[in-house]
Amino acid sequence: MQVITTEMVQKVIVKRPANSHKGQFGRVLIIGGNQQYGGAAMMSAEAAVNAGAGLVTVMTDQINLTSLHARLPEAMFVDYQAPTNQLAQTIRNADVIVIGPGLGLTAHALMLLQLTFKTVTATQTLLVDGSALTLVAKHHLPLPNTQLILTPHQMEWSRLSQLPIAHQTISANQQSLAQLGQPILVLKKHHTEIYHDQAVYQLTIGTPALATGGSGDTLTGIIAAFCGQFQTSIATVNAAVYTHSAISDQLAQTQYVTLPTQIIQALPAFMAKLSQS
Amino acid sequence: MQVITTEMVQKVIVKRPANSHKGQFGRVLIIGGNQQYGGAAMMSAEAAVNAGAGLVTVMTDQINLTSLHARLPEAMFVDYQAPTNQLAQTIRNADVIVIGPGLGLTAHALMLLQLTFKTVTATQTLLVDGSALTLVAKHHLPLPNTQLILTPHQMEWSRLSQLPIAHQTISANQQSLAQLGQPILVLKKHHTEIYHDQAVYQLTIGTPALATGGSGDTLTGIIAAFCGQFQTSIATVNAAVYTHSAISDQLAQTQYVTLPTQIIQALPAFMAKLSQS
Amino acid sequence: MQVITTEMVQKVIVKRPANSHKGQFGRVLIIGGNQQYGGAAMMSAEAAVNAGAGLVTVMTDQINLTSLHARLPEAMFVDYQAPTNQLAQTIRNADVIVIGPGLGLTAHALMLLQLTFKTVTATQTLLVDGSALTLVAKHHLPLPNTQLILTPHQMEWSRLSQLPIAHQTISANQQSLAQLGQPILVLKKHHTEIYHDQAVYQLTIGTPALATGGSGDTLTGIIAAFCGQFQTSIATVNAAVYTHSAISDQLAQTQYVTLPTQIIQALPAFMAKLSQS
Amino acid sequence: MQVITTEMVQKVIVKRPANSHKGQFGRVLIIGGNQQYGGAAMMSAEAAVNAGAGLVTVMTDQINLTSLHARLPEAMFVDYQAPTNQLAQTIRNADVIVIGPGLGLTAHALMLLQLTFKTVTATQTLLVDGSALTLVAKHHLPLPNTQLILTPHQMEWSRLSQLPIAHQTISANQQSLAQLGQPILVLKKHHTEIYHDQAVYQLTIGTPALATGGSGDTLTGIIAAFCGQFQTSIATVNAAVYTHSAISDQLAQTQYVTLPTQIIQALPAFMAKLSQS
Repeated sequence: MQVITTEMVQKVIVKRPANSHKGQFGRVLIIGGNQQYGGAAMMSAEAAVNAGAGLVTVMTDQINLTSLHARLPEAMFVDYQAPTNQLAQTIRNADVIVIGPGLGLTAHALMLLQLTFKTVTATQTLLVDGSALTLVAKHHLPLPNTQLILTPHQMEWSRLSQLPIAHQTISANQQSLAQLGQPILVLKKHHTEIYHDQAVYQLTIGTPALATGGSGDTLTGIIAAFCGQFQTSIATVNAAVYTHSAISDQLAQTQYVTLPTQIIQALPAFMAKLSQS
Repeated sequence: MQVITTEMVQKVIVKRPANSHKGQFGRVLIIGGNQQYGGAAMMSAEAAVNAGAGLVTVMTDQINLTSLHARLPEAMFVDYQAPTNQLAQTIRNADVIVIGPGLGLTAHALMLLQLTFKTVTATQTLLVDGSALTLVAKHHLPLPNTQLILTPHQMEWSRLSQLPIAHQTISANQQSLAQLGQPILVLKKHHTEIYHDQAVYQLTIGTPALATGGSGDTLTGIIAAFCGQFQTSIATVNAAVYTHSAISDQLAQTQYVTLPTQIIQALPAFMAKLSQS
Repeated sequence: MQVITTEMVQKVIVKRPANSHKGQFGRVLIIGGNQQYGGAAMMSAEAAVNAGAGLVTVMTDQINLTSLHARLPEAMFVDYQAPTNQLAQTIRNADVIVIGPGLGLTAHALMLLQLTFKTVTATQTLLVDGSALTLVAKHHLPLPNTQLILTPHQMEWSRLSQLPIAHQTISANQQSLAQLGQPILVLKKHHTEIYHDQAVYQLTIGTPALATGGSGDTLTGIIAAFCGQFQTSIATVNAAVYTHSAISDQLAQTQYVTLPTQIIQALPAFMAKLSQS
Repeated sequence: MQVITTEMVQKVIVKRPANSHKGQFGRVLIIGGNQQYGGAAMMSAEAAVNAGAGLVTVMTDQINLTSLHARLPEAMFVDYQAPTNQLAQTIRNADVIVIGPGLGLTAHALMLLQLTFKTVTATQTLLVDGSALTLVAKHHLPLPNTQLILTPHQMEWSRLSQLPIAHQTISANQQSLAQLGQPILVLKKHHTEIYHDQAVYQLTIGTPALATGGSGDTLTGIIAAFCGQFQTSIATVNAAVYTHSAISDQLAQTQYVTLPTQIIQALPAFMAKLSQS
């Protein structure tokens, strides 16, 4: 198990080519946000925009449209109650899809997850988070053939892998991932672990100032934006996970808690510093 | 009567353990915010999030959902017109409940208060504020058996205790509290007094820059977050009351008024400073 | 005609007494904001809150509730389509009323204006601005017996006074004001003039950076907050008019335009500086 | 082809005359923003307000009203589903009209575009952007006789001019513009080119930090505000295009991406610096 270092992250967050346009930096789609948990999808989208995604669309309940735009006019909106063929078209248009933040566990949430699994192709990246992971476990959904990233807490991973938390050893986790088709796994815990094939990385930075609602949603947006810009790989996911905690660590020098919206605002400056050094 | 000191507060706002998660820092539920006074519930929730509560949910009128999320995506939402069993489940899930900010005096407000009183248990903390206090007095509601905090102005205390303001002496207040089952009392006035059993504390800091609408709502959120993180006790309530005024005092060095939203934003830095010194 | 000086303003913006509460700093009511011009009422309310008003309520179209609270949770809301007796009660509860910002010229706007004129008493302060002034002129409404402040542009004053702009001399203006019952007049122009009885003051500060939509709405909120805190008088109105322009002048040292929302944010610090020197 | 220099821009962004009012700085109307892309119209409007436009109105879907005002109370609103004669009246009242940001390609979008083309006169300035350009190309709409500015990407210009990107030489572009009635052309690409009659200018500043959704929408607001204040001409358009990229360059010294909302906030200070040097 290797520790993620600043040097590794600097190799990922490279300077942009002078002649480039937003289309090259990823079309990110966030699917989530029911009436109760709409903020989760917003934080994911705000993180994606601030982490440099070229274009960000949020597929969510219509009730979240106004608060989304009041916070983030940069995002585009798709009503997640729209006809299925429109939803599928939106999914096909994305380079990176996040499903889960604030999605909930209703029949409609399940339909959206199944539609996403049916629609994504091997050239797209799909991040499955939060309630979407719970739905996968509960309904025994087979995972799709795509560049897949899973971001469970230990309890969520337990439901997916059937491994009780005490049994979540590196080798047991790797065996489970092989059975799941080798997705990238971000196993969120005190020292988060990132798995892909034989590689295992560990995050050793981060403070309890990050222990607040919305931190996980924010992380999904950063991972998505990084995959949209820097190619999907364990190195890119490592960089995103590290960036999220490193910003919190910086803020925590002067703050007791580091809120999602504060971490989001600090993304452009943090990324500049790493890409320039 | 003892004066609350910085040293007392520093003993409450301790550093977080390295290995911790949001579940340990309190599930706070704010019940309030009708159509006219929705901002009160938002200020309470924003204060709770910024004061470090692990998870914050707002049970309020549906009309307040969008403005809540436009300000605070970190909060979760429950429609206070939802079926009673759902509301009760939400109440049961909370560690700390605030009822009152912007709740109003309608039959629905009364129903929510009675439901809360019926549902809370001895292991939960319940803060009763504002119009909820008026409803208690008006309808002679017996107070529930829980860790109870009351935050009346002198007039509101007068209605609850039947003590005219001129008769609100320490011993008279203590007698009333004994009859009410020994809740913690935050008696808001020029030099706010905090009571529990035989203990009485006084706040001697604070300036008239705090005399503006929403200050009381903000205080409820800070108390709730502190109880969620540091255990419910008079020391914790003292720390919250002190923090609220100390931040205002700092801001008042350069501001004629110190608005709730400004105090809220200053919470993470103030708490860091106290926990580190 | 006397020039308004910093010294005059310092005599108005005095330190608050240590033992005071929000009720002493004025209950301000803003009446305005239809669907098209809702932002005007919000800017007036934001200015009032930031200028120190104790409590601020906005009586406006229901459609403006969410954006109002997304910006300013400190404000309370009343639907201006509510039953007349409720509207009248809200008007009676206020110490200072502003009518006009974004009110428009519909029959409902006229009804609200007439209701306000009928309801206010001699102990209240009423500021009439914008479209409310146009309605007064158009419908020849007699002005109510209250502490009245009018804030017209030259064209609006022309409609009210029947004086063409070229004829708006000091003595002609004073004659017109005598016929209107001696309201305080804020005649907005390059060097704004303030009239009351025999007194005439002139504002000689201010830059064209202030020439942007919403400046007038912002001014109404500052005047209202000052009257709520410092007693209604020409000295208080002078102080408000001066504060508005002085903040813009400060900001204009580094900004090409000074937006209403920027001036509003600078109010607490500006007032502190004046009250402390 | 001439390079746009700071000196050229300083000749445009002149100090405002001391005795001036908002009416002199342009009535800007933004037409755009359907349910999916409402943020685009908001960013255009925010840019116009911050770049000094005297008055800004947004004609958009009713669903965007609340988020618009939550962000920008300075803007006025017109429902783009209002009766045609009201829409036409709003168009006639504007000095500068922007049509396109987030407008979409529906029949209603086409109706609004045709109404605008029919209504504008030779004394008004009309900027056609984004989906409005696509509609012009698709429906072969003749361009109106007005002070016209087109802001296509290379692909959009290809559709309008029938010139494949590889054939978009200066002389070919000039020929196409002659056939289109000599509008000002802002051809957005790596080094953006601006055309009018025989003049061709090139922007040589700007970094890939600007390659993010909403940059184009923001640019339309800046151009509109500048035309409203400084007269419509290629020099004014050059100054707007330069200002947009120069602010991004400044921000990019410390930021990996420069978001529209950040560029917008920096406008007043940037314009002050240029007008004072």
